[in-house]
Amino acid sequence: MPPMAKSTTAGTLQEASAALNGLADVGEGRQRVVIERVTPELDGGRFPIKRVVGDTVVVECDAFADGHDVIACAVRYRGPGDTEWRDAPMEPLANDRWRGQFTVDTLGRYRYTVIGWMDRFATWEHQLHKRVEAGQDVAVDLLIGAELVAEAAAQAPAPEAAALHAYEQALRAGDAQAAFAPDLAARMAAHLPRRYASSYERELQVEVNRPLARFSSWYELFPRSASPEPGRHGTFRDVIARLPYVAELGFDILYLPPIHPIGREFRKGKNNSVVAQPGEPGSPWAIGSVEGGHKSIHPQLGTLEDFHALVAAAKSYGIEIALDIAFQCAPDHPYVKERPEWFRARPDGSIQYAENPPKKYQDIYPFDFESRDWQGLWKELKSIFEYWIAQGVTVFRVDNPHTKSFRFWEWCIGELKQAHPELIFLSEAFTRPKVMYGLAKRGFTQSYTYFTWRTYKWELTQYLLELTQGEPREFFGPNFWPNTPDILTPQFYGGQRSVFLTRAALAATLTASWGLYGPVYELMQHVPVQGREEYIDSEKYEIHHWNLEQPGSLRPFIARLNRIRREHPALQRNESIRFHRVDTNFAENEQLIAYSKATPDLSDIILVVVNLDPNATQAGWVQMPAAEWGLEGDYQAHDLLTDARYTWRGEFNYVELNPQAMPVHILRIRRRVRDASGFEYFA
Amino acid sequence: MPPMAKSTTAGTLQEASAALNGLADVGEGRQRVVIERVTPELDGGRFPIKRVVGDTVVVECDAFADGHDVIACAVRYRGPGDTEWRDAPMEPLANDRWRGQFTVDTLGRYRYTVIGWMDRFATWEHQLHKRVEAGQDVAVDLLIGAELVAEAAAQAPAPEAAALHAYEQALRAGDAQAAFAPDLAARMAAHLPRRYASSYERELQVEVNRPLARFSSWYELFPRSASPEPGRHGTFRDVIARLPYVAELGFDILYLPPIHPIGREFRKGKNNSVVAQPGEPGSPWAIGSVEGGHKSIHPQLGTLEDFHALVAAAKSYGIEIALDIAFQCAPDHPYVKERPEWFRARPDGSIQYAENPPKKYQDIYPFDFESRDWQGLWKELKSIFEYWIAQGVTVFRVDNPHTKSFRFWEWCIGELKQAHPELIFLSEAFTRPKVMYGLAKRGFTQSYTYFTWRTYKWELTQYLLELTQGEPREFFGPNFWPNTPDILTPQFYGGQRSVFLTRAALAATLTASWGLYGPVYELMQHVPVQGREEYIDSEKYEIHHWNLEQPGSLRPFIARLNRIRREHPALQRNESIRFHRVDTNFAENEQLIAYSKATPDLSDIILVVVNLDPNATQAGWVQMPAAEWGLEGDYQAHDLLTDARYTWRGEFNYVELNPQAMPVHILRIRRRVRDASGFEYFA
Repeated sequence: MPPMAKSTTAGTLQEASAALNGLADVGEGRQRVVIERVTPELDGGRFPIKRVVGDTVVVECDAFADGHDVIACAVRYRGPGDTEWRDAPMEPLANDRWRGQFTVDTLGRYRYTVIGWMDRFATWEHQLHKRVEAGQDVAVDLLIGAELVAEAAAQAPAPEAAALHAYEQALRAGDAQAAFAPDLAARMAAHLPRRYASSYERELQVEVNRPLARFSSWYELFPRSASPEPGRHGTFRDVIARLPYVAELGFDILYLPPIHPIGREFRKGKNNSVVAQPGEPGSPWAIGSVEGGHKSIHPQLGTLEDFHALVAAAKSYGIEIALDIAFQCAPDHPYVKERPEWFRARPDGSIQYAENPPKKYQDIYPFDFESRDWQGLWKELKSIFEYWIAQGVTVFRVDNPHTKSFRFWEWCIGELKQAHPELIFLSEAFTRPKVMYGLAKRGFTQSYTYFTWRTYKWELTQYLLELTQGEPREFFGPNFWPNTPDILTPQFYGGQRSVFLTRAALAATLTASWGLYGPVYELMQHVPVQGREEYIDSEKYEIHHWNLEQPGSLRPFIARLNRIRREHPALQRNESIRFHRVDTNFAENEQLIAYSKATPDLSDIILVVVNLDPNATQAGWVQMPAAEWGLEGDYQAHDLLTDARYTWRGEFNYVELNPQAMPVHILRIRRRVRDASGFEYFA
Repeated sequence: MPPMAKSTTAGTLQEASAALNGLADVGEGRQRVVIERVTPELDGGRFPIKRVVGDTVVVECDAFADGHDVIACAVRYRGPGDTEWRDAPMEPLANDRWRGQFTVDTLGRYRYTVIGWMDRFATWEHQLHKRVEAGQDVAVDLLIGAELVAEAAAQAPAPEAAALHAYEQALRAGDAQAAFAPDLAARMAAHLPRRYASSYERELQVEVNRPLARFSSWYELFPRSASPEPGRHGTFRDVIARLPYVAELGFDILYLPPIHPIGREFRKGKNNSVVAQPGEPGSPWAIGSVEGGHKSIHPQLGTLEDFHALVAAAKSYGIEIALDIAFQCAPDHPYVKERPEWFRARPDGSIQYAENPPKKYQDIYPFDFESRDWQGLWKELKSIFEYWIAQGVTVFRVDNPHTKSFRFWEWCIGELKQAHPELIFLSEAFTRPKVMYGLAKRGFTQSYTYFTWRTYKWELTQYLLELTQGEPREFFGPNFWPNTPDILTPQFYGGQRSVFLTRAALAATLTASWGLYGPVYELMQHVPVQGREEYIDSEKYEIHHWNLEQPGSLRPFIARLNRIRREHPALQRNESIRFHRVDTNFAENEQLIAYSKATPDLSDIILVVVNLDPNATQAGWVQMPAAEWGLEGDYQAHDLLTDARYTWRGEFNYVELNPQAMPVHILRIRRRVRDASGFEYFA
C-alpha cells in the first residue's frame, strides 16, 4: 500500500465565526466530496459484519463531488489494538462507485468508514494535459502547479521535499512535461494535504473471529453413553478414551449436552414419558437439583478435575470441547428457591412452568426476562458462561436462544466477546428466518439451519443462494447438521445407507461448518417415535451403549469427508459456491445436484455431485464453466472419495452415480500443466 | 383509528441501579420486541422521504420477540406542528413483517418511527383459548386475566373502567367465556399499559410538499421574445399579455430564464459566437453588469413593479412564475469587484473563468465553494432566493446545481424550506445518475431527467421502472421535458409532426410533471446547429418574434394533453405505472409502447398507447390485465384525445396508430355498469 497523506477535515479560523453566523451545524462547509451507500453495512450500521482473521474486507461506496474535479477516496479502518486510523486507497469502478479493501489480522472489533477529498494535483495534471494537447498557453497553469508542489514539499520529509522542490523549480521554469512524471504523481499523493476531506457519516464495525468460527466440524455425543461397559453410566474419563475415535473421524469440536445435575422433580422417563421410573436418568436439559445448577457437574459424569482433564486431552487431539448452555431450570434447581423473582409467579403461588398450550412441560421452569430483577438475572446468566470459560471452554452451543430476550443476548455476548474475542456461540434456534438472523446479528457466531428439512435440489439451491449470496453472508454462520438428538427427519426412516452418505456429504461440502450427532449417525440409527421426527429410545432420556466397531459403520466415510475438508481450502468458506446444471435427455435432472467451490486464485476447485435419489442410479451431463476456470483441452476430475480419475473436456461432462455403491462425487478439478522438461500432468 | 394505550418504555426504580451495575448502556432490559428494517428509509435515515399533502405513508418493519407471546406494533409519527407523537396501528403480514400507515396533511417535516410491545392481553386470551379447547382447568389462568383487566381499568376513564371491572368480576367468578368478548379485546387494547415498549432506533423523516411538487406542467419562454411587435425587446408586460395563451395551453408554472442584467464583458453573440456584435442582447445566463446582479432586473424587461404585476396576473390564471437561479457571474457582475474572495484567483492576478479544458467560457466566473469566506458566500446565495421569495416567487429552476457544493444545497434548501415549506426547486442537473439522485436527496423537489434521450421502447420502460418502482420513487421528482433551450435531440430534426406529438404525449403521461420550452415546441422548430443537439439561432443569444397563430401549431393538442392530465387523477402521480405487452404477429412490437396508470380504487384507469415509428402505421394486440381491473365482458376504451370509443373484451385488444393522423391513444378504460333501472352504460 502506498503511503498516503494525512487528511484534515478542518483546521480553520472560520469555524468559530460560522457558529456565530447560524452555520453552526454545518461544520466545514468546504467539504465537497459526498460519500454514500457504503457496503458492507448492516441495517444502517446498527450491527457489525463478521469476518475471520486473515480475511479481506472489500468496501465499496458511492462518491462524487460538484463539478468536474478529480476526487480520491480511502477506506479508513482501525483494528482493536490500533490507536490511529489507517487508510487503504480506493479505486473508481463505473458509475461513481469506488472500491478498496483491508485485511483483518486481529481478533475483536474493527471499525471502518470511508473518506474522500478533492484530488487537487490530479485535477490540475488532468486539465494541464488537455491544455497542452490543445496547444494552449499554460504559463499560469504551471505556476498553479508549482504552488501545489510547494505545498506538498512543505509537508514532506527532507529527501522527498528536495525531490518535490526540484519539480517545483521545473514547473516555475515552464517545463510542462515535468508535470507528468509518474514519481511526481506518487509523491503528491503521499504529501499533498487532503484539504477539506469528507467522511462517511457512520462508523461501521467488523467482528473478527478466529478461523474456527467459520470452518468447523462438530461432533455431538452423550457422555453418559460413552462407557465401554454396557449398563455403566459414562464419565468424562470415558469421553477422554473416546477422543481417538473422534479425532479419527476428523472432528475438531466435541459438543456435549448439558453436563449439570439433572432435576428430580417431574423428571421425564424413557421416550419422554411423563413419569420417570426409579433409576431413570432424566433429560440433561432439565437442569439443576440439590447437587447444584448451571455451574455444577452432574456427579455421575465425574469431577471438575475430570472435566479439566477432558478439555486438556481434547486439546492434545486438536479438539475443543463445546458445552451446551440451556437457560432453564428443573423445579429443584437451586435458583428456584434462592431467586424466586427470576421466575414468573402465578396467582396461586405456584411458579409458571414451560408451556405451549395445551402442552405442559412441568419439568422446566423458564426464566422470566421481565423480572423486576432483570439486571441480577442477566448478570448471573453471563456469569455461567464466565464460569465455564474459566474452566477452559471457548465454544458454546446455546439451547433455544430465541426464547430468551434479544437484548439480553446482544449485551451478554457483546460483553463476553469484548473480554474473550475467541469465543464461539452456536445458536440452536430452529425457528422463523428473521428470528434466526436477528440472533446472528446480535452476536451468535454460528447457527443451526433449515438444512435438515431441505432435501430437494431446488430448495437446497435456493437456500444456499440465500445464505451465501444474500445479506446473511455478512453475519450469519450456517452450520449444517443432518441429525440432532431432537431431529430424525423422514428421509432416514428407510435406513438406506445412500441417504446417510448423501446427507453427510451435502452437509460437509455445502457449508464450511457442519456437525453430526453420533454415534447414532455413523451407526445409521433410523427408527423414529411413531408420528414424530425424533429417535425412538432417545439418548435424551436413557443411557445407551454403542458398538463403534459395528460392520458397515460410516466411520471411514466420515473420516474421509473431514480429511477432504481439511485439505481443501475451497471447502473452508461459503461464498464461492455456485450451482451447475446437470442435464439428462436435454432436461435438468432434479435428482443430480452439482455445485462447486473454488479459492479466488482458482488453485483449488472442488466440484461436488450428489445423487439425491436413494433408489436408482442417475446419470447426466454436468455443465462446467471450463473457460472461466481456464480449463483448456483435457482436464482431470479427480474423485477425492474414491481416488478415481476422470479425463474431462470442455463444458459438458458425463457423471453417473449409483446409490448402492457411492452416491457422491467430490471431484478436484485438475488443470493440465507442463513442467520445464515438457512432461505433462494434472495439477 | 381505534384509541391506543399510552406506551411506557421505562419508569422503573431499577434504572439507577442498572447504571451502578455496569448495565448503564442497556436502558430498560425488559424491552423484548425487536424492530428492524423499517421502510421506507433512505440511507439509514440520513435523508427524508418525500410526499405531498394528502398522501399516505405506508410503513413496514420486521418485528418479533423472544418466545411465543403475541406482540403488537404501531407507527409513531408527528407532524410539523405536533407537540406529541401519534400512533397508527400496524397489522402483521407474513414472515414477521408488519405494516401500518398514516396520512400527511401539513406542509413541512414529519417524523416517524415504529414501536412494539408484548400484547399481554392477546397472549393470555390466545393461550386461554387453547386451554379451554383442551378441557384444562383454567381457574388460575382466569385470575391472571382478571389482574390484567384490573390493571387496564386503573388506567381507563370512568365509564370504561366500569365496563372493565365488570369483566374482571366475571373472570374472577370463573366465567371463561367472558375473556373472549370482542369489546373486551378492544377495551384492553385501548387501556392496558404497553409495558416495556421498544422503539426502532432511528427517527425517520418525511418532507411533505404541496401537490404542485408532484403534479405540475411547466412552460418556459423568453420574456424578451414576448413582444407582439417584431424588433422590440419583450417585457414583463408582454408576458402578462401572453398569459391567456399559456393558460389556454393548460400550464400551471411559467418559467422564465434569468431576468437579471446581462454582462457586457466577453458577451456572446448570435449562435454562441465568441464576440457579440454591437446591440446583440447576450445570454441571460451571463448574469450581472453595472446595472446589478442576482437581485436586480434587466432594465429592458421592466421594473420590479412590473414583475410584481406579472406574478399577480399569473396567479389570477392559476399560474405560478418560476425563476431561474444560476449561481455564476459575468465578469462585470458587482460581486466580482465587491467580493473577490468568492472567486478563484490565478497567480497572475486574474480571476478563474469557467473552463472544461480545452474549452473556455470567459463570459462566466464560477463561485469558489472553497473560498475562505464560504460562510459569507453561502449566506449571500441563500439571500438571493429570499429576495425573490419576498417578491412572491415560490418555484425555482436551478441552473447546473451539480457544479455547486452539495453541502451548500442541503443547508440552503433546508433552511429555506423550514421557513417556506411551499417552495419547489427544480434541479437542472443533466449529469450522472448518482449525482442527480444526490441532489434530490439533499432537497431538490424535482429534476430534469434522461427522458430527452430515451426514445426506444425498451429504454423508456427501463427508465420509468427505475424512477417509479426503485428507490428513487421515495425522493426523486422526475420532470420530463421533450426540449429545452439547450437541447434539441435528433429525433426532431426531420420536423415530423408525429415526433412532436408523441414526445409531448409521452412526457405528459409517463410522469406527473412535464414541461415544454415554447413557443418553439408548439411551432415545431427543429433546425439544429450543425453537429450539436442545439437549436440554430437560439433564443439564448438573440431575440425572436413568434407567430402563435401559425397554422398547424400544436397548441390545441398540448391544451388537450394538459386538460386530460387535470381531469384524471391517475395521471397525477407516478408509482402506479405499468407497461403492457403489445404483440404483432405473436412477437413484441418494439414500435408500440403501452402503459397504464390507475388510482388505487381503480375508479380512474388510463391506458396510453404510442406509436414510436414516425414513418409507418403500427398495429398490434395490447394485453390488458382485465381480470385484475375487474373488467368482465365488454368494456370501453374511450380515447380522450379524439373522443373515439372502442368496445373491447378480454385480455387482448387491437390497436392501430397512424403517424400521419394521430400516433397516440390516451384511453380511459370504462367498466360496463347497470343502473337501478337496468340501463347499461360505461362508467
